[in-house]
Amino acid sequence: MSKELSTREANYSEWYNELVEKADLAQHSAVKGCMVIKPYGYAIWEKMQAALDKMFKDTGHVNAYFPLFVPKSLFEAEETNAEGFAKECAVVTHYRLKSDPNNPGKLIVDPEAKLTEELIVRPTSEAIIWNTYKGWIQSYRDLPILINQWANVVRWEMRTRLFLRTTEFLWQEGHTAHETKAEAITETEKMLDVYAKFAEEWMAMPVVKGFKTANERFAGADETYCIEALMQDGKALQAGTSHFLGQNFAKAFDVKFANKEGKQDYVWATSWGVSTRLMGALIMSHSDDKGLVLPPKLAPYQVVIVPIYKGEEQLAQISEVVLKMKAAMEAKGISVKYDDRDNQRPGWKFAEYELKGVPVRIAIGGRDLENGTVEVARRDTMEKETLQQADIENKVAHMLEQIQDNLYQKALAFREEKTTAVNTYEEFKTVIEGKTGFVLAHWDGTSETEKKIKEETKATIRCIPLNNKQEAGVCIYSGKPSAQRVIFAKAY
Amino acid sequence: MSKELSTREANYSEWYNELVEKADLAQHSAVKGCMVIKPYGYAIWEKMQAALDKMFKDTGHVNAYFPLFVPKSLFEAEETNAEGFAKECAVVTHYRLKSDPNNPGKLIVDPEAKLTEELIVRPTSEAIIWNTYKGWIQSYRDLPILINQWANVVRWEMRTRLFLRTTEFLWQEGHTAHETKAEAITETEKMLDVYAKFAEEWMAMPVVKGFKTANERFAGADETYCIEALMQDGKALQAGTSHFLGQNFAKAFDVKFANKEGKQDYVWATSWGVSTRLMGALIMSHSDDKGLVLPPKLAPYQVVIVPIYKGEEQLAQISEVVLKMKAAMEAKGISVKYDDRDNQRPGWKFAEYELKGVPVRIAIGGRDLENGTVEVARRDTMEKETLQQADIENKVAHMLEQIQDNLYQKALAFREEKTTAVNTYEEFKTVIEGKTGFVLAHWDGTSETEKKIKEETKATIRCIPLNNKQEAGVCIYSGKPSAQRVIFAKAY
Repeated sequence: MSKELSTREANYSEWYNELVEKADLAQHSAVKGCMVIKPYGYAIWEKMQAALDKMFKDTGHVNAYFPLFVPKSLFEAEETNAEGFAKECAVVTHYRLKSDPNNPGKLIVDPEAKLTEELIVRPTSEAIIWNTYKGWIQSYRDLPILINQWANVVRWEMRTRLFLRTTEFLWQEGHTAHETKAEAITETEKMLDVYAKFAEEWMAMPVVKGFKTANERFAGADETYCIEALMQDGKALQAGTSHFLGQNFAKAFDVKFANKEGKQDYVWATSWGVSTRLMGALIMSHSDDKGLVLPPKLAPYQVVIVPIYKGEEQLAQISEVVLKMKAAMEAKGISVKYDDRDNQRPGWKFAEYELKGVPVRIAIGGRDLENGTVEVARRDTMEKETLQQADIENKVAHMLEQIQDNLYQKALAFREEKTTAVNTYEEFKTVIEGKTGFVLAHWDGTSETEKKIKEETKATIRCIPLNNKQEAGVCIYSGKPSAQRVIFAKAY
Repeated sequence: MSKELSTREANYSEWYNELVEKADLAQHSAVKGCMVIKPYGYAIWEKMQAALDKMFKDTGHVNAYFPLFVPKSLFEAEETNAEGFAKECAVVTHYRLKSDPNNPGKLIVDPEAKLTEELIVRPTSEAIIWNTYKGWIQSYRDLPILINQWANVVRWEMRTRLFLRTTEFLWQEGHTAHETKAEAITETEKMLDVYAKFAEEWMAMPVVKGFKTANERFAGADETYCIEALMQDGKALQAGTSHFLGQNFAKAFDVKFANKEGKQDYVWATSWGVSTRLMGALIMSHSDDKGLVLPPKLAPYQVVIVPIYKGEEQLAQISEVVLKMKAAMEAKGISVKYDDRDNQRPGWKFAEYELKGVPVRIAIGGRDLENGTVEVARRDTMEKETLQQADIENKVAHMLEQIQDNLYQKALAFREEKTTAVNTYEEFKTVIEGKTGFVLAHWDGTSETEKKIKEETKATIRCIPLNNKQEAGVCIYSGKPSAQRVIFAKAY
């Protein structure tokens, strides 16, 4: 397979698809809308999981596991939530296959093994979890419950894209239970902050924290907080959500507790999640026409070393030097791959690791041996320099920090450049279609206006930023008074 | 809920069920046959996962993720495998719900959203994975493929028990592809060794490595290797399996490669897995009538410290000492929980941590403050001793090693005591019913004899041990000649 990608400018969407497949991140499977996450892609996801899991535990959460299936009667208990997901549910109706009498060696669904109650493959786990929490909570002493689950979920999507929108995806979902409204809101905001910190410090992806409008809220939530990122094609991507669920699920599942005053009250809830969609966000934030660009903190290996040699003897000399450098870097916590395969040429390897986004590439040849040098190339800037081998571990460690920071700064500058305040609907439409990006505009606060703007321009309100600047103005669409600008964009 | 358990002697099965629920390991869910793994149980599973995952990576494997669903046409491609799992498959037939016109607020399956091809919820992933490998393998240069997946699987079980047999369970499944038969067999054996090492060194559970008979083989395998453990009630438990799949899946999915001689050949395969069933094995290997007993290497916290105090001031004095000890132990890699809750009495806490199997409990009261001592209790032997606080971290580290070793030695001695060689069928039946345990007996090697013994006694051949001692004898059932004894037992 050729390593050449379509360019972002020629066809952004094809560039993305080709990159995901050629960099060995994921591919389509035989199951419509479901993907295979390939080892290199999965290794990045494992890095994400490890960082997030630690942050969840550091904020007092524990992991648990709840069933894949939700009986229909539980699924429909919280009606808003059920309605929101009903149209995209995979439903298990039978529990057995049998031999096809008309087709030897083939199987058919056994009509005698029909379930009395259908099982929904979880699109999200509030229902099964709140049905379980009911048995765990009697008094305020049983609260808070701070649980996270790493799991697969299924939402039947008609139009899918690798990582960004797939029928099955991997995610984590936090589900917490609290005594008071204030405590639940604090939790919702705390986890939003965790997500924002992860996005910015690990993924090097700047995000805006905000509220969703009622239209865009999670089905069953009183308030949905989100982090929104801007991709290189000027489209927004919702990278994580944290929901204040009020007492909606407690009421649907009758989860009451005796409070400190001895009175019965319904429990307050939150839920929050991020998914393998983050892989799509990561790819689209930093990558270029040569392939993936990974922030060092999430790279499966941060450094690759490629020997350039003639003959076994020279390779042995180079390897001796390389293995020492490798050990020195590893002792500093840097992950290093030494690619001494003899069935591929250095140029092929260079292209391969550029495609795979390895942050730093070190090449070493015969002249380097003589001079005590190596050639070091940065993936983010594509700059090369010749460095002395001595103290290479500290030079590389410093370079990795610079790359991590540079990627964030570059993405931030891009977002700032692509954020435009507009004051009229004409201006709005021009920017949404032309310049694209985040568009800051006054809005009258009604769902009606929001829907009309969406119908006419495909732009949606991505969020109302937290601590948003209050500023009197008029709605770009209705001309009615508005107290603040909100962020519009076309979105993934 | 009372912390008292049924005793193992009075009712082993109830003892197990109560222990699993009361020690907060798992519980039944609203979905028939599916469990909720509670945070404390899940924390043990996470420890198991981390140790196994490292062992897999250290032996050259990488993780990936394949779809939850298998289209029926792929599922049935390898006929032996399909037949083996057909009777226990959850089947997705529809992808949408809709409002029930006769029942406002309720949902029904939308008959218009019927899938043209049913999807099987994976009971194991050979089919979907080999269908994917087909696209990855052209030549010997693409081999070996050494992939593991952590996932949930579903097998529709009629009689379920928490951890031991559940409709949905969590597991890892390795799926490897090789150039030669010999290499695949080496891989199968290597992973069996990994499992045995994990069982013995982490779980402190001795196992016998062996082959399954044809009757007990994985559907689709040419050879199934297993590790078998003996539980405290004298029943065997299959704790892990590693399958040599020959070219069966390669042929079913037409996966050929150009070998080094340039000829086309089918790829050789293995698969291997362990599951949350190991949690059941762990519980039943070491626990007693007071609750769980955990080997230190898998305990979510290895040490719990309970203060015994009167008044805030004394608690503050104790806490000062405790926090220093805790830090010293943590610096040595020991995980420590300090339980200074003021709403439970020390006696309640002692019982709680005995139930939860915490390996070492440290209590510290007013007199200890004066004397510079602590009271240290071992969960495995229930022995208590008073130790000087000085150097407590090294004393506890040493004690944890002793506990890990003692649990293994105790389980090994139990197994040896419960392993009986018999020479007649009468003797066989007496031991299987009375003493129980592993029974070593001559067998004529036929499936027919094996099935008859199973029908008459419920005992099955657990395995033919690897490197089994060859010894001439006669089959206990048929009287035909036999070259070796095999291990029979009743089993989970």
